[in-house]
Amino acid sequence: MTSKIHPTAFIHPLADVEPGVEIGANTKVWRWTHIMSGCKIGKDCMIGQGCSIASKVTIGDSCRIQNGSHLFDGCVLGTNVFLGPNVITTNVKFPRSHRKGKFEETIFRDNCSVGANSTIICGIEIGVFAMIGAGSVVTKNIPSGVTAFGVPAIIKKSRTHHLEKLNI
Amino acid sequence: MTSKIHPTAFIHPLADVEPGVEIGANTKVWRWTHIMSGCKIGKDCMIGQGCSIASKVTIGDSCRIQNGSHLFDGCVLGTNVFLGPNVITTNVKFPRSHRKGKFEETIFRDNCSVGANSTIICGIEIGVFAMIGAGSVVTKNIPSGVTAFGVPAIIKKSRTHHLEKLNI
Amino acid sequence: MTSKIHPTAFIHPLADVEPGVEIGANTKVWRWTHIMSGCKIGKDCMIGQGCSIASKVTIGDSCRIQNGSHLFDGCVLGTNVFLGPNVITTNVKFPRSHRKGKFEETIFRDNCSVGANSTIICGIEIGVFAMIGAGSVVTKNIPSGVTAFGVPAIIKKSRTHHLEKLNI
Repeated sequence: MTSKIHPTAFIHPLADVEPGVEIGANTKVWRWTHIMSGCKIGKDCMIGQGCSIASKVTIGDSCRIQNGSHLFDGCVLGTNVFLGPNVITTNVKFPRSHRKGKFEETIFRDNCSVGANSTIICGIEIGVFAMIGAGSVVTKNIPSGVTAFGVPAIIKKSRTHHLEKLNI
Repeated sequence: MTSKIHPTAFIHPLADVEPGVEIGANTKVWRWTHIMSGCKIGKDCMIGQGCSIASKVTIGDSCRIQNGSHLFDGCVLGTNVFLGPNVITTNVKFPRSHRKGKFEETIFRDNCSVGANSTIICGIEIGVFAMIGAGSVVTKNIPSGVTAFGVPAIIKKSRTHHLEKLNI
Repeated sequence: MTSKIHPTAFIHPLADVEPGVEIGANTKVWRWTHIMSGCKIGKDCMIGQGCSIASKVTIGDSCRIQNGSHLFDGCVLGTNVFLGPNVITTNVKFPRSHRKGKFEETIFRDNCSVGANSTIICGIEIGVFAMIGAGSVVTKNIPSGVTAFGVPAIIKKSRTHHLEKLNI
């Protein structure tokens, strides 16, 4: 299984990158992070310390994934996605040790941001430019451009808020 | 101090397993995980990446402990326990840097599941087949078979719910 | 760039300590923890497994930072600060992948404690002897000596509570 790691990508010597991955130009993978065979990571990304990126994960260009975040099979990130430290994804709603549950995907649309220590329940989509506050548990689809937070995360500011600030 | 590590157990070369542990048949210990002298781990378990298992911890057979979870002294897990990624246990209710607090145990009964990023306050018991939702803070005993979640975790579905689904 | 690491400090061989740091007497730095050039750590501290301490961080004497905690630029800890496992700090309130936000500091005053899995939003101060419960999201200044918890953290017990217990 051959990898396609761009020569300008930086893989820290203490990272563990399996064969069979795609990693784009200028992307950085930091210490004690595990990149599993089959996943695809775009260019200009930063994957922090102590993360894991599973095989069936796709990450677009210019994403930042901070320390201690774990992306399990079925996560799809667009471009410019920000995941704060210790953001956790899931892919089964009712996990049990002794059986496989129903597997569900999670979609992070372009330019969305997820605050530190948040948990994303599988089977949902976080919209373009959405901003999820730190420490949230996201259980439902989050529309584009809104700010949502809490346990469970609920919408606190309407869609125009951040789009205006960003002059879009 | 001699270890009892079954020859079919898999210890990843980047894990750090101290002498004096017991690890059963077919159990897997993954990268950057620290297994401390004195702890006991049953057979057919999976201990993910970046975990720590302290000395006075007992883990039964067929448990799955996902990436980034930390089990401190005083945790006792039965069989078939599932801990999602970044599940944190505690063993002192009012921790201070400069003194030892009152040490308390935490019991995870057979077949219970704890969702991603949850925190378990010490001194409690999570019952058989209980399901703790992601991102919860568990502060009280959780009866068998119920679904509980939130900060603090409260019971949302009565005991028969998951037992029925599981045909028990 | 020269480091000032006291000869009695213990740096685990699997830690990654960059040049240009200050680490005081008897401080311990554990496995898979990254200490970045420029940061200052006092004496008698414990930095657990899998942590990261950024360049512009100052940590006073006798602090305990448990496994999986991440301190980003702009964190200032006094003496005797306790951070539980997986405590996350931030330094930008509205992070985006593609731009720098406004950078803000976070101050942890002497003898404060932050429970496991809590998230501290930047730009605030946690007062002397304050106690933050596990799984909290701290969004505002926390006065000295109070107990606060929840998402967002709110004050649950007034300032005298823990000071009395501590005979101060």
